[in-house]
Amino acid sequence: MDPIQKKNALRKLTYGLYIATARDAESVAGGTINWLSQASFEPPLIMAGIKRDSRLHQAIENSRAFAVHVVGKSQKNMATTFFKGAEETNGKLNGFAFAKGATGAPVLADPPAWFECRVLESFHRGDHTIFVCEVVEAGVRSEEEPLTIREAGFNYAG
Amino acid sequence: MDPIQKKNALRKLTYGLYIATARDAESVAGGTINWLSQASFEPPLIMAGIKRDSRLHQAIENSRAFAVHVVGKSQKNMATTFFKGAEETNGKLNGFAFAKGATGAPVLADPPAWFECRVLESFHRGDHTIFVCEVVEAGVRSEEEPLTIREAGFNYAG
Repeated sequence: MDPIQKKNALRKLTYGLYIATARDAESVAGGTINWLSQASFEPPLIMAGIKRDSRLHQAIENSRAFAVHVVGKSQKNMATTFFKGAEETNGKLNGFAFAKGATGAPVLADPPAWFECRVLESFHRGDHTIFVCEVVEAGVRSEEEPLTIREAGFNYAG
Repeated sequence: MDPIQKKNALRKLTYGLYIATARDAESVAGGTINWLSQASFEPPLIMAGIKRDSRLHQAIENSRAFAVHVVGKSQKNMATTFFKGAEETNGKLNGFAFAKGATGAPVLADPPAWFECRVLESFHRGDHTIFVCEVVEAGVRSEEEPLTIREAGFNYAG
């Protein structure tokens, strides 16, 4: 396999942009992710690839749950602040309002849609862990269209 | 959880449109899929959700390999023909040229990019199986932009 062809082919896949958050005994954690897809209608399952050496990964491993937020077309800046993780200050997460969700994960107030999920299985074969999760809570807050990673001008594939 | 909120939140996820193909001892098989994402850079892994009761699923289970083709912006019609599976007639697949790939899966000639992958693990928890696979061959054939499922006017989520 030619590694350049492999990189360029994998970069043709289409992704959204999502903010994932979790909380363990230590603190909140968060990150901007794009390797995410639904994986079953019934039960409602999703699969997500989360960077192995991240604080978000650690918090998901510890709490076995996380929240996913769909980034809206106007919210590129919000997504950018989560590239470096999440920090709770004055009751906000990277400056954004949130509330504690059903799983304990922080649920941000502003994204157009969100869901919380509980980890059923994880697969540790590569540099990201694949978490297979059941969606246990969800909500839609606005009709704002989702931002794709291509529209945002970011790239995380290959 | 409110099932309507769950459905609407999951429908805000962003997906491309892909044609997956496989071959087992019986015949070729194929389908249009969208639940697909990269899952690791090193090794290059992908994860795909494949409908459990489909002929494509059966051929992947048997051959432990499949090919994925990125559908280009001009190729909505090609994707549509694979909604009902794949049939080999006069050396073509649903009327489209293909060649046998490294894994034995049929590789279509027209899509802008494709890769072949071998199944490492599978999770059978929902109505779709999650196949975790290593990318073993790949190619890019044109600079045509990928079609998203939203642009195509299709919907497979919720």
